[in-house]
Amino acid sequence: MTLKVGVIGTGMIGQEHIRRLTQVLSAAEVVAVSDIDGARAAAVGPEGAKVFATAGDLIRSNTVEAVVICSWGPAHEEQLLDCIAAGKPVFCEKPLVTTAAAALRVMEAEVAFGRRLVQVGFMRRFDADYRRLKATLDAAVLGAPLMFHSTHRNAAVPEELFYTSDMPLNDTLVHDADISRWLLNDEVTGVEVRVPRRSRRGNDLRDPVMVLLHMGSGALVDVEISVNIAYGYDIRGEVSCEEGTASLPLRPATLIRDIHGVRQLVPADWRERFIEAYDQEFREWIAAAGQGTATGPSTWDGYAATLVADAALRAVESGALEPVRMCQRPSLYGTTLEAAR
Amino acid sequence: MTLKVGVIGTGMIGQEHIRRLTQVLSAAEVVAVSDIDGARAAAVGPEGAKVFATAGDLIRSNTVEAVVICSWGPAHEEQLLDCIAAGKPVFCEKPLVTTAAAALRVMEAEVAFGRRLVQVGFMRRFDADYRRLKATLDAAVLGAPLMFHSTHRNAAVPEELFYTSDMPLNDTLVHDADISRWLLNDEVTGVEVRVPRRSRRGNDLRDPVMVLLHMGSGALVDVEISVNIAYGYDIRGEVSCEEGTASLPLRPATLIRDIHGVRQLVPADWRERFIEAYDQEFREWIAAAGQGTATGPSTWDGYAATLVADAALRAVESGALEPVRMCQRPSLYGTTLEAAR
Amino acid sequence: MTLKVGVIGTGMIGQEHIRRLTQVLSAAEVVAVSDIDGARAAAVGPEGAKVFATAGDLIRSNTVEAVVICSWGPAHEEQLLDCIAAGKPVFCEKPLVTTAAAALRVMEAEVAFGRRLVQVGFMRRFDADYRRLKATLDAAVLGAPLMFHSTHRNAAVPEELFYTSDMPLNDTLVHDADISRWLLNDEVTGVEVRVPRRSRRGNDLRDPVMVLLHMGSGALVDVEISVNIAYGYDIRGEVSCEEGTASLPLRPATLIRDIHGVRQLVPADWRERFIEAYDQEFREWIAAAGQGTATGPSTWDGYAATLVADAALRAVESGALEPVRMCQRPSLYGTTLEAAR
Amino acid sequence: MTLKVGVIGTGMIGQEHIRRLTQVLSAAEVVAVSDIDGARAAAVGPEGAKVFATAGDLIRSNTVEAVVICSWGPAHEEQLLDCIAAGKPVFCEKPLVTTAAAALRVMEAEVAFGRRLVQVGFMRRFDADYRRLKATLDAAVLGAPLMFHSTHRNAAVPEELFYTSDMPLNDTLVHDADISRWLLNDEVTGVEVRVPRRSRRGNDLRDPVMVLLHMGSGALVDVEISVNIAYGYDIRGEVSCEEGTASLPLRPATLIRDIHGVRQLVPADWRERFIEAYDQEFREWIAAAGQGTATGPSTWDGYAATLVADAALRAVESGALEPVRMCQRPSLYGTTLEAAR
Repeated sequence: MTLKVGVIGTGMIGQEHIRRLTQVLSAAEVVAVSDIDGARAAAVGPEGAKVFATAGDLIRSNTVEAVVICSWGPAHEEQLLDCIAAGKPVFCEKPLVTTAAAALRVMEAEVAFGRRLVQVGFMRRFDADYRRLKATLDAAVLGAPLMFHSTHRNAAVPEELFYTSDMPLNDTLVHDADISRWLLNDEVTGVEVRVPRRSRRGNDLRDPVMVLLHMGSGALVDVEISVNIAYGYDIRGEVSCEEGTASLPLRPATLIRDIHGVRQLVPADWRERFIEAYDQEFREWIAAAGQGTATGPSTWDGYAATLVADAALRAVESGALEPVRMCQRPSLYGTTLEAAR
Repeated sequence: MTLKVGVIGTGMIGQEHIRRLTQVLSAAEVVAVSDIDGARAAAVGPEGAKVFATAGDLIRSNTVEAVVICSWGPAHEEQLLDCIAAGKPVFCEKPLVTTAAAALRVMEAEVAFGRRLVQVGFMRRFDADYRRLKATLDAAVLGAPLMFHSTHRNAAVPEELFYTSDMPLNDTLVHDADISRWLLNDEVTGVEVRVPRRSRRGNDLRDPVMVLLHMGSGALVDVEISVNIAYGYDIRGEVSCEEGTASLPLRPATLIRDIHGVRQLVPADWRERFIEAYDQEFREWIAAAGQGTATGPSTWDGYAATLVADAALRAVESGALEPVRMCQRPSLYGTTLEAAR
Repeated sequence: MTLKVGVIGTGMIGQEHIRRLTQVLSAAEVVAVSDIDGARAAAVGPEGAKVFATAGDLIRSNTVEAVVICSWGPAHEEQLLDCIAAGKPVFCEKPLVTTAAAALRVMEAEVAFGRRLVQVGFMRRFDADYRRLKATLDAAVLGAPLMFHSTHRNAAVPEELFYTSDMPLNDTLVHDADISRWLLNDEVTGVEVRVPRRSRRGNDLRDPVMVLLHMGSGALVDVEISVNIAYGYDIRGEVSCEEGTASLPLRPATLIRDIHGVRQLVPADWRERFIEAYDQEFREWIAAAGQGTATGPSTWDGYAATLVADAALRAVESGALEPVRMCQRPSLYGTTLEAAR
Repeated sequence: MTLKVGVIGTGMIGQEHIRRLTQVLSAAEVVAVSDIDGARAAAVGPEGAKVFATAGDLIRSNTVEAVVICSWGPAHEEQLLDCIAAGKPVFCEKPLVTTAAAALRVMEAEVAFGRRLVQVGFMRRFDADYRRLKATLDAAVLGAPLMFHSTHRNAAVPEELFYTSDMPLNDTLVHDADISRWLLNDEVTGVEVRVPRRSRRGNDLRDPVMVLLHMGSGALVDVEISVNIAYGYDIRGEVSCEEGTASLPLRPATLIRDIHGVRQLVPADWRERFIEAYDQEFREWIAAAGQGTATGPSTWDGYAATLVADAALRAVESGALEPVRMCQRPSLYGTTLEAAR
């Protein structure tokens, strides 16, 4: 009953997921790995895992039942299409793909296949705090959601990432956009970007930025993205409704009273903050993949994120409200619940 | 040594200040009152206070050493000019005046007089929480302030106010604008307004609104104004700096553990929230007025607030960034400390 | 209408109250001072205040309408009796007196006089947090109070106080005992003391101690007294009732997010913690003294505190439950509300 | 590599662990069940599990590699001895056994066997909040622990348990006693019990109680046990050290602002509060049992808990400090780290 998984891409995040599948979650095993750097794949793959020369070979191998894609974004489209062609469930780290056209092609293939196979790595949807927040909103005792304030702060930009000024908008923002759509059962229809005074900690980086997401219902989302704020990795969110608000709580951390005051430490980075969410994400992926399908964030959601990132990049240049125009939603991806609220 | 005060305007807020000057603060006494409704003035004035037929008569009376203006906004300009002409310190409830031109005329008169006489009723500057927040920012250990998130929520719009959709922008916003200028030692240079989905609690009211204040330093302020949010009067603020943030704390309130959870009640209205700030505001006004001058929010600050309100009203119509163009700052009003940071 | 006050004892706390009466509260003025160190009295008394050679002379002077006693404890009995003989309202810093017999003599004199004249300096009863806590309990929505956990922590013992191991029990504990009686509308009937492992910060000091106060209703109070805990002055309290609990909140302090976590500073000492309570205490004392009487903590309350301190000192020696046996409560001091709950 | 587990006792907690082993944790499977009510065992055992007539038969079966004991306490001794005789790792729900003599016999057998086989169900040691608290204490930056305030509140006593006045002391207290020993790296040397005014919610139940645990180091633990406090299941703890304190944080729960204030819900019961701790407890047990041994709370810890419960029952009768006298600690169970602090 153990799911036989092949992992494509064995860099930092690939290694993290191999560790997770091998040591934390026992319902799956990693039977195959592949990387453009074959030596790295061989080095980090678990004992007994076969090393494939190409992603395509791994995907088509009979020993692989389901695929985890951790390669770089531009390679995703071909790998996803191969998975769909092979009828194999696939977990794809964000970004789904790097262009809206590519997203449409993947969506077309999956719709033609007739069953969901693709799950995108928006791990926040599996975080217990976000889930409780959504449950509170869906219970609707606070009235309709009108505004959502999302705060997305990194202590520092990883040096190895060659982080550019576009990345807060096309790499970081996608998490806030996806979680906004999910929390509010809504779609983004337009994006604005405002650039405050820059932090001197980031050399010439455009940091922080404020993004406004206009939602289909009229709800307004404002996102603070600060990627160099020194003190920790701090993800917060408050949804203002008609009769009250609901927020993410402080993370559980020992409450210390000492010379620095009454205090609780903040997570150092995304790994610490979302480690249980990643575990849960894969737990649910394994369960769905074992049934030959996928759950959670879909190709549709990855497509939406791509459109929002594109609009954000246009908006930071134009200074204007840039529209997000999605195609008709295929029935394979259900319907938003927005009308039901 | 008791300051002899004349109060102009004896409506709700006037009566509140008469109570304060009479019962709470003992360094002043109310010796004169005036109102367009003379009967009301006579009814609510303290025993022994003289009732004047006109504001001008009260201001010029020899028994009045200092003046408190609580009349409606359109009457302020003439009353302020009369006070300056008489050389008498004056506390003027917001708005200072209702047009930028009027503000300039008052400023010109005060500058010609050569000494500050006017204090405007921005009570937040006297609130202990805001003062501690400013002290934290001014200590500059967190680096430069880059963003300020200000939340301004009323439980309900007072029915007696004939509250219109313009009032969040020309009546409520002025507090957030003034406190932003003060906290950040900065000026507002432009205003944008975004209008989310409306709350069904407010009939046709444009509520909530989000306002973006662009500051001279490049710092960006976003303000949520919700005037009908049912659960309480909730004023919050977080300043995001280069290396950390500083926020207003929860208000002190008994921490209850009961069937509703672990909870603290929220203030019901501005009176409950800012009662100590009002007391402190008048304590400092009395001390300054006793020296023949004024302290705290000045004519310059009232002028700035008027310009921001004007820009906000234009911005909600235009959808664009509306500039705020202030005149040269007279030396009477000091300098911003922004350069010093 | 300004209350003419004479201050006896011009040490640290005396000077603090002179500052308060002179600079903060304007309904009173200090017209006389006295100290066993006459030169000090002359030096710190406000301009125009008469320096008396003895406390008795000050008390009997026609220019003094009300008295503040800040001398050392053993002198209080005679000074209080003199005030009562002169029919003058008196604020007496704790301890009221140093023996139960002395307390009874003062009480007898006041009862014979027929009107309350004495207010004891238990400032916590005037603290807004404690008042809200009491209001919550008195509303009785949580059911009857069963336990009260009181935490009393000092950052460090003032070197100038020659602090001994008895002082947590006869000097510090009285505040917790008084506030327990007041919050619970109850009397202490017995005291136990337990001595944990000692802090190495206090040399040979018996610190911390845990005190159990058995109340007349059966409610149980446990008090942690730590007088050398380094991190700050931290006063906390939670009352466990039948259907929930009510606690003092965190003190308002800027919420900082920085490298030390999400944090709020703790007050450094009692002055910072209770400064508003002291102001309010004197505000209410002045109002009552102006009417020729006293309010708040009474001779009866001072007597109770003396008995509890005596019992605590016995209990730390005996290790046993030491009873507190109060005399019949004179009607001058009202009745406990305990029966009404 | 899947651990083949036999479960003895298929009541409420047994069924909960069968669910956990079957649905949540994939490294184990339940291959055998046994219950004095054989029909119940047959009904709730997972498909394919063999139903044994007696616990002994199950333990000795070749298909069972490790045992989970969820039977009632008086049956534990024989079952544990059988497991040790069979050399099989065993997880035993609390209480380990019901008398000190029985605990000694189990300990003697395990020591003779020469390897730990027994893990006792003190799940708090696997809770992430308690683990972070212990890590903070062990880091010793706050100085030595002097006091520990532990709060143990149940919303209501389950009707099906026939809960008696002894159970707070011999059933509930063991968790606080064990976690105190573990957090402080210390042993309990004496127990006192104080009984406050009773809650009217519990009919004639002795509720709440306060327990004082005297630790070997001199540290003092006070425990509030309230088993009928209506508002929720609330486990809290603060360790007072020489230079600061460390506390369990509030549980993560959506922060709601509504008509009831700023609030977070409290867990309803122990299941909700400790669900992740139970999962982690079994995860670690499975890993150790797979190696033929045990981890976490040991027979020694179960023995200590039994002695504390005995002392508490004596103390509530005597009103005195009842000593806890443990035998020499066998080297199989390591040493306390207390000396190292």
